[in-house]
Amino acid sequence: MSNDNTVYVGNKPVMNYVLAVVTQFSNGAEEVAIKARGKAISRAVDTAEIALNRFLKDITKKEIRTSTEEIETDAGRTNVSSIEIILTQRS
Amino acid sequence: MSNDNTVYVGNKPVMNYVLAVVTQFSNGAEEVAIKARGKAISRAVDTAEIALNRFLKDITKKEIRTSTEEIETDAGRTNVSSIEIILTQRS
Repeated sequence: MSNDNTVYVGNKPVMNYVLAVVTQFSNGAEEVAIKARGKAISRAVDTAEIALNRFLKDITKKEIRTSTEEIETDAGRTNVSSIEIILTQRS
Repeated sequence: MSNDNTVYVGNKPVMNYVLAVVTQFSNGAEEVAIKARGKAISRAVDTAEIALNRFLKDITKKEIRTSTEEIETDAGRTNVSSIEIILTQRS
């Protein structure tokens, strides 16, 4: 999957990310990955749930993965959890 | 799976929940479910990642599910996202 089909969820209102996901499927994407780290993980789950329940009738959750990433901060290296939710066309 | 094997993640420090998960496996549980709703979802992912990476060498992620729940609030019914992370003994 190319990076074009990835939506990175941050601190903006959740509907921004829902719209991004819906737009990618409207543009013909077969799969869209929703990714987030740290506190944005909750919003990534909201994004997937709202997109699926309200907007995307033929799309389904394919896989949910969580992992731990090491990031650089001013205070040195630290670990942060991340999530990746893959949505795909219902076959 | 009985409810005894479920850890509900809320607003306490993450290590409280990590300890609860580790304790359940120490007491012989085959599987432990980590559940959270709303903003606590991020902490549930942290709980699973820390428990697996630092404490539980023979345990693996079996499944991650997300869903939408309808809850009652003072302002009426509203939707909230939820997550369930199932950890299990590596076979």
